[in-house]
Amino acid sequence: MRWAVVLAGGVGSRFWPLSTAQLPKQLLPLAGAKPLLVEAVERVLPLVPAERILVVTSAALAAPIRVALPMLRPDLVLAEPFAASTAPALAWATALAAARDADATILSLHADWTVADAGKFRAAAGSALDLAERDDVVVTVGARPTRPEIGYGYIVPGQALAGAARHIARFVEKPTAEQAAALIRDGALWNTGLFAWTARRFREEIRAHTPELAAGLAALDRGDAAAMYDAVKPVSIDVGLFERTARGAVLEGDFGWDDVGSWAALRRVRPTDAAGNIVVGDAHVVDATDCVVWSEDGTTVVSGLAGVVVVRARGITLVTTAERAPELKQLLARLPAAVAEARGA
Amino acid sequence: MRWAVVLAGGVGSRFWPLSTAQLPKQLLPLAGAKPLLVEAVERVLPLVPAERILVVTSAALAAPIRVALPMLRPDLVLAEPFAASTAPALAWATALAAARDADATILSLHADWTVADAGKFRAAAGSALDLAERDDVVVTVGARPTRPEIGYGYIVPGQALAGAARHIARFVEKPTAEQAAALIRDGALWNTGLFAWTARRFREEIRAHTPELAAGLAALDRGDAAAMYDAVKPVSIDVGLFERTARGAVLEGDFGWDDVGSWAALRRVRPTDAAGNIVVGDAHVVDATDCVVWSEDGTTVVSGLAGVVVVRARGITLVTTAERAPELKQLLARLPAAVAEARGA
Repeated sequence: MRWAVVLAGGVGSRFWPLSTAQLPKQLLPLAGAKPLLVEAVERVLPLVPAERILVVTSAALAAPIRVALPMLRPDLVLAEPFAASTAPALAWATALAAARDADATILSLHADWTVADAGKFRAAAGSALDLAERDDVVVTVGARPTRPEIGYGYIVPGQALAGAARHIARFVEKPTAEQAAALIRDGALWNTGLFAWTARRFREEIRAHTPELAAGLAALDRGDAAAMYDAVKPVSIDVGLFERTARGAVLEGDFGWDDVGSWAALRRVRPTDAAGNIVVGDAHVVDATDCVVWSEDGTTVVSGLAGVVVVRARGITLVTTAERAPELKQLLARLPAAVAEARGA
Repeated sequence: MRWAVVLAGGVGSRFWPLSTAQLPKQLLPLAGAKPLLVEAVERVLPLVPAERILVVTSAALAAPIRVALPMLRPDLVLAEPFAASTAPALAWATALAAARDADATILSLHADWTVADAGKFRAAAGSALDLAERDDVVVTVGARPTRPEIGYGYIVPGQALAGAARHIARFVEKPTAEQAAALIRDGALWNTGLFAWTARRFREEIRAHTPELAAGLAALDRGDAAAMYDAVKPVSIDVGLFERTARGAVLEGDFGWDDVGSWAALRRVRPTDAAGNIVVGDAHVVDATDCVVWSEDGTTVVSGLAGVVVVRARGITLVTTAERAPELKQLLARLPAAVAEARGA
């Protein structure tokens, strides 16, 4: 049967001062009325029933996530003892599905994306699951780039595999703008983090290619996730598996994927007003263009500015530019600890 | 003897959201640690003793002003029944001084200026009082313009009168930038509102030239200020007296006068950091230049911006530009009433 694993462990500081360690990006309603995580689960529900959806998160977030997603089985909301990148989390969740369903196929996705077209997302996810089952490969779904984004990873597709599927030639993580433009010209895709595999194939590939998890797999076989985490070396599934396996495949998916990496990114994922502004909460914008204004704990008035980001939340007002919004972590490092303290664990 | 009248009735909205009808500009510590009004009174104290300093303000502000200025006689903090521009206020205060001191000479000033050099201010004020007494004229002190400011009134000096004093050729209120540049080339001065006259000469001149006050003067002679206000037509002393009298004189005063007309003006009257920023309160500025950041009821962080004004006060954050800061009244008119409501009576 088909299962979904939603990775929801992020503690990101990129939505400071709104986001906190207790309320990180995936629990914020950044793209619409509901938290990104809730949207992610609801998006996948027509494809995978609630009782086969796993969420992997931190110990601190497991309880609020169980509350936010009452349709899920509480025991399938998994709390990692510590964050160890994506490979251990996916190994755990895949093993847990396999223990219940030896023929499990896994769809893996992230809780903090946005997707413009849920129907096309499910079509792409379904094709990835089909491919994983039919051709016994581990599948990554790439998105056609719409700009030379330097914050993303890129997948360079290789030889044709079957239908629209291609082998993976290589991955390029966070290129320069020039490199990104060249990658796009050469047909590279954004590495979205939407994956599919059968539990059997995944286990074989991890065993063959991911020594970082080797010491933990026996513990996992015993159902002892805590012991696995004690034994693993943190590694991402991209590095720990996809860059190493010969059984990787890439499918292109065109569903309006966005990782919403900063306050400025909200202009891509929420409807703007006629002047290109995003205005959320008790905020008033006069003669302003291309601004993001989010006001939670009071009133914010913005006048006569272009391309600024203004966020009022939790007693703090942040005023910066769209260009600087992705560098919020660097800004926080330059502020007094008492101001920046809510930036996460 | 010499008396001082401090006009402190303003309800200005130019420092919204910090300023309110109950706490207008002159009661805010905009230029230093003390409210502008307190600084104005302390500045004049070496010249005129506290018991001969009058303050004219609104009924709403009289009580807090008496608290803020405990050195003044409470009965000399005059509460106007309504704002009627400057001529009625000055007629009232001058008559009140004359009733106590037939030989009174009046120095009139505003509560909401800033002065860079208090010693030079007192020297100029002393010269104006000397001139008023010696030559029996009504004196205005003009400041040498430092920029083609369009928000000010200009005085064009005329023929020489005595010493450095000149007759007044004409007044020009709020010229265009081009007109202002031409006025400056021609030697015009800024109309600061620092005036001097003897009570006797003032009364003669008002009687002769200010029909707007004619019906009120008899009431004033009876000591009935309320009846005077009922009878007067609001008019400024510039229009109602200086533009009409032949006994006007202008003296140049070089004491770093500024009317602090907007948030952006704080950069002229407070010390800036090395990057030209004014940072007051719980505010943090990173890679910003020429900004004004005032944070009262929470934390404000500004990064990567130039020439912006950010004010956080009373549950509201205002973000605008230095260029737009003088147009705050127009901005408030475009906001919902509930947001702008604290803009004053």
